[in-house]
Amino acid sequence: MSDTKAPDASRRSERSRRAIFDAALALVSETGYAKTTIEGIAARAGVGKQTIYRWWPSKAAVLLDAFLDLAARANEALGGDADSEIPDTGDLAADLKYVLRATVDEMNDPAFDGPTRALAAEGMVDPELGARFTEALLEPQLGYYARRIEAAQAAGDVDPDVDPRIALELLVGPLHHRWSLRTLPLTHDYADTLVDLALRGLAPRA
Amino acid sequence: MSDTKAPDASRRSERSRRAIFDAALALVSETGYAKTTIEGIAARAGVGKQTIYRWWPSKAAVLLDAFLDLAARANEALGGDADSEIPDTGDLAADLKYVLRATVDEMNDPAFDGPTRALAAEGMVDPELGARFTEALLEPQLGYYARRIEAAQAAGDVDPDVDPRIALELLVGPLHHRWSLRTLPLTHDYADTLVDLALRGLAPRA
Repeated sequence: MSDTKAPDASRRSERSRRAIFDAALALVSETGYAKTTIEGIAARAGVGKQTIYRWWPSKAAVLLDAFLDLAARANEALGGDADSEIPDTGDLAADLKYVLRATVDEMNDPAFDGPTRALAAEGMVDPELGARFTEALLEPQLGYYARRIEAAQAAGDVDPDVDPRIALELLVGPLHHRWSLRTLPLTHDYADTLVDLALRGLAPRA
Repeated sequence: MSDTKAPDASRRSERSRRAIFDAALALVSETGYAKTTIEGIAARAGVGKQTIYRWWPSKAAVLLDAFLDLAARANEALGGDADSEIPDTGDLAADLKYVLRATVDEMNDPAFDGPTRALAAEGMVDPELGARFTEALLEPQLGYYARRIEAAQAAGDVDPDVDPRIALELLVGPLHHRWSLRTLPLTHDYADTLVDLALRGLAPRA
């Protein structure tokens, strides 16, 4: 989108962009990734399909941006900016519980759950799409955890010999397991228990 | 299948059953759950589709049995029975590493990975199918972990206040996260590190 347009045109563009993202997420949630088309997104968003092709080269590109926008809005709802680190209040357990509870709320929110399941299902069987979304959507989020754990290592709250990447997987792995396989409810209590157990495992050795 | 048939008929039945399972797993892996049909399985297995309908009422039922058979064969390859508990040698870390390493090997085996991804992808977006397969395939496996952890609690190796269900999720959750999202390689070293970190978290409080 151009920055040189008149304000009215920018507002119209922004409205179209939002309508396209909403339509893309709703469609993928209802019909799955494979059956979602640029034509379908355009029809539902009330724009011409040329509008979509002007801004994005492919269905995967529209959906990637729609999911990035969804994640950014979820971060903003948490009180952070669109691209925000995990808070560092000096209390690692409290900071991680705050983020894991928010993740639980997100997983329980149909506006997140529906499209994310459709995307995860496709990534499960399409390695190229999976890699693209993992790199663009998931890895930045895992980076927030890694940096918070590194700060805790510097502060002496986490064993410096532990790999931060494996440490964060102890937190997000069980959440993802419950969510993706729908085994048991995702609650704040569960988030808190995971943090407490994982931090016992990560504590500096006596 | 009837137990009253002559031995030759039983052998033919067993050969057909094996051919049907192999065809079902190969097809679901290649074309996905939605596109796999009873007709396609019959053609690939070289049997009439009435043979399949005589034994199973639906595509989901054939695939469920095919996956149960796959899991049973994986357990046998581990040296256990088709339906086997996690060994209890008295060394919890060693027993869990044995099982987690075997799980890693399974996840890295295309014969397991392909059909399991297709099934997991469908379960991700079809709650009813997901629940059916989680209950029949996944929960019995999680039960093995729960019982081994309960035995460790009785032996004083794991904090008796920890919920065995959450304890086992610290082990299988991170493995499933790497596998399903294809973030990083699944290795024996990774399995060992997970067990060591999780057991530090689960140790009885001093």
